[in-house]
Amino acid sequence: MRAFVRVKVPASAMSTAKDRASPATLGHMRIDDLRTPAALVDLEKTERNASRMSERATLLGARLRPHVKTHKTLEAARIQVRGHFGGIAVSTMAEAAFFADGGFRDITYAVPIAPARLAEAAALARRLDRFAILLDDPAVADAAEACARDRGVRLGVFLKVDCGAGRAGVDPELEAGVALAGRLASSPHLDFRGILTHAGQSYRGRNAAEIRTVAAAERDVMTGFASRVRRAGVPVGEVSIGSTPTLSVANDLAGVTEVRPGNYIFFDATQVAIGACALEDVAFSVLVRVIGRYPRRRELVVDGGALALSKDPGPVHVDPECGYGTVLDAVGEPRRGLRVVSLSQEHGVVRSARDLAPGELPIGSLLRIVPNHSCLAAALFERYAVVRGPDAVIAEWRPVRGW
Amino acid sequence: MRAFVRVKVPASAMSTAKDRASPATLGHMRIDDLRTPAALVDLEKTERNASRMSERATLLGARLRPHVKTHKTLEAARIQVRGHFGGIAVSTMAEAAFFADGGFRDITYAVPIAPARLAEAAALARRLDRFAILLDDPAVADAAEACARDRGVRLGVFLKVDCGAGRAGVDPELEAGVALAGRLASSPHLDFRGILTHAGQSYRGRNAAEIRTVAAAERDVMTGFASRVRRAGVPVGEVSIGSTPTLSVANDLAGVTEVRPGNYIFFDATQVAIGACALEDVAFSVLVRVIGRYPRRRELVVDGGALALSKDPGPVHVDPECGYGTVLDAVGEPRRGLRVVSLSQEHGVVRSARDLAPGELPIGSLLRIVPNHSCLAAALFERYAVVRGPDAVIAEWRPVRGW
Repeated sequence: MRAFVRVKVPASAMSTAKDRASPATLGHMRIDDLRTPAALVDLEKTERNASRMSERATLLGARLRPHVKTHKTLEAARIQVRGHFGGIAVSTMAEAAFFADGGFRDITYAVPIAPARLAEAAALARRLDRFAILLDDPAVADAAEACARDRGVRLGVFLKVDCGAGRAGVDPELEAGVALAGRLASSPHLDFRGILTHAGQSYRGRNAAEIRTVAAAERDVMTGFASRVRRAGVPVGEVSIGSTPTLSVANDLAGVTEVRPGNYIFFDATQVAIGACALEDVAFSVLVRVIGRYPRRRELVVDGGALALSKDPGPVHVDPECGYGTVLDAVGEPRRGLRVVSLSQEHGVVRSARDLAPGELPIGSLLRIVPNHSCLAAALFERYAVVRGPDAVIAEWRPVRGW
Repeated sequence: MRAFVRVKVPASAMSTAKDRASPATLGHMRIDDLRTPAALVDLEKTERNASRMSERATLLGARLRPHVKTHKTLEAARIQVRGHFGGIAVSTMAEAAFFADGGFRDITYAVPIAPARLAEAAALARRLDRFAILLDDPAVADAAEACARDRGVRLGVFLKVDCGAGRAGVDPELEAGVALAGRLASSPHLDFRGILTHAGQSYRGRNAAEIRTVAAAERDVMTGFASRVRRAGVPVGEVSIGSTPTLSVANDLAGVTEVRPGNYIFFDATQVAIGACALEDVAFSVLVRVIGRYPRRRELVVDGGALALSKDPGPVHVDPECGYGTVLDAVGEPRRGLRVVSLSQEHGVVRSARDLAPGELPIGSLLRIVPNHSCLAAALFERYAVVRGPDAVIAEWRPVRGW
């Protein structure tokens, strides 16, 4: 299935830089027909990233439930699930509804749920083959059970575990987590699916070796906690983990049943810096034009600011001078010596390490910027221009937005 | 004119946390009916901020051309222009088209234009009473002139001047800027409107006194440059300046004809920290719910992350511990001792300075977070819930998006 080529986009829907009187037709569009800033998705790299992660999951013996929060589009999600069972993870209830409408039948809402959203969760549980929420607190377990009972549905639930990220999840060392697993498993209204974690601390790694240590700890914490829960007489179905850095370098996931990476579909400057991928793997960039040229201070201003790139500070623990992304030329080749040194709302300041030659990068020139965090940058756009090869625009994908 | 009460919003359009079977009707909605994260606009504070800036502009003898980029809504723009001539400044061409459609007749696109957008600018110049672009480069002047000539319109143009922000604009010390002003004024196809600056360096101030120094420099650079241009025989109509910090504290703008502040309509945590306003003046906040509670580490997780608050680092030069915003309780009173210490895509981690009492801020509790930068946070939302008093939701405003 090659979902992307079936996307029909009227030429008028693609935002072009040219006069409306003569719109470029999609299929003959080039990136210089685009209004800037524009989100570019390199289709071949997206598919290659998907294939590689698909193969890694198979090799590691875990089923792949890709996270779709990085792109939030049906088209990219369909590429991610190729050859796998079709389940996905989402980060908002708006995504859950959007992907359900788009034909996905097995969805995990992978953020601890607010009790106010349980009614929506119950409706999704009724509508889909499988829908699961996650929680880490007895009060939410009570509310979820009451909601499921009142609505006559069986609501899938994962117990969220903190494997060292220090964000959400039960402490796997404490008895309370085991007790909560038992509480979930004993409810006739809840379908206790298993335990789930996200090793967010992997982003603090500085290289593949450090991330591999995090990956081993993530696995060991989860399989150890699963054993404790099972010893307490509570069956644990899934042992679900997910982070692009750890899954990009892990070499043994014995005991893990499911993986939920997301960022890998695009990657970004942070993943390059920490050793999870190479720069040529990054499938997402922001196309900008030079709108100001200041050779005396070796600077350019481009029309991509904080609302196009996000102000994610990037991998400063690896490269304090990383700025707000990695600068590429118009067709995606690295432009060494150019850095995005500051962002305001609609301006990006790009500094050159050497004097700009006369006529170099004149106003109007196109550049691409690989953002520090593609999840945050992609969410800033209403549409992505899907590119094949150096500059052919072949489709438009529209992400879902909001909560 | 009280535009905001004339906004008709079907109850179904407002995103509520309750089941669709029983939607709350707007007018009887409370903030706890809202899905979170939600953007809240306090109407009374918005109107008060507008009135104060309106009075300041009048007192300072400059006409007010408010910038609308902070909110991007027709409703807030109508409040901003009350009692003034009705002109606005915008930060994107999408805003220009949206506000033109909404009845605004005098618009300045206040970012240096990319030549690829000149055709759109010419169309707006034809359609509106006044439309102006800005530029700082002879190559763009040539392109603008050619475009205006080819399309038979006279295109309004400001010369952008760098008054010390170091972002865009001609250097007012160099002859090139004066020459470019002459070039613009001599074109039969361009309407040279004057000179324009933005004192972005005011955000690096640490208190009102420091910002007042920036304000004086902004004025002096601009009036000095205007004099130089005039001495060269080139008439300068407008001397336009604009930054919320400088305009909040300036006490003498002799020689300045127009001011373009924007952020003041909402303000934010940065403006509080640098002394441009008080916390109780801030009209924009993000409503979140507690979705995780970790008393052992004195932390809560809320459902507002980087996609609700932006990762703007905030006023770290004034308060290195500012985190990602200022925490208020559900009705907008300060919750001292709570800090937003980290953000991931859909999670915010809030840390308490002291132990959480049993039952304090249970899961589901509402909090408001005043973002570091309201322009960036507001742009992340499809709609704003307009609030009157502590918790009544009285309208929905929808901002324009994109470029």
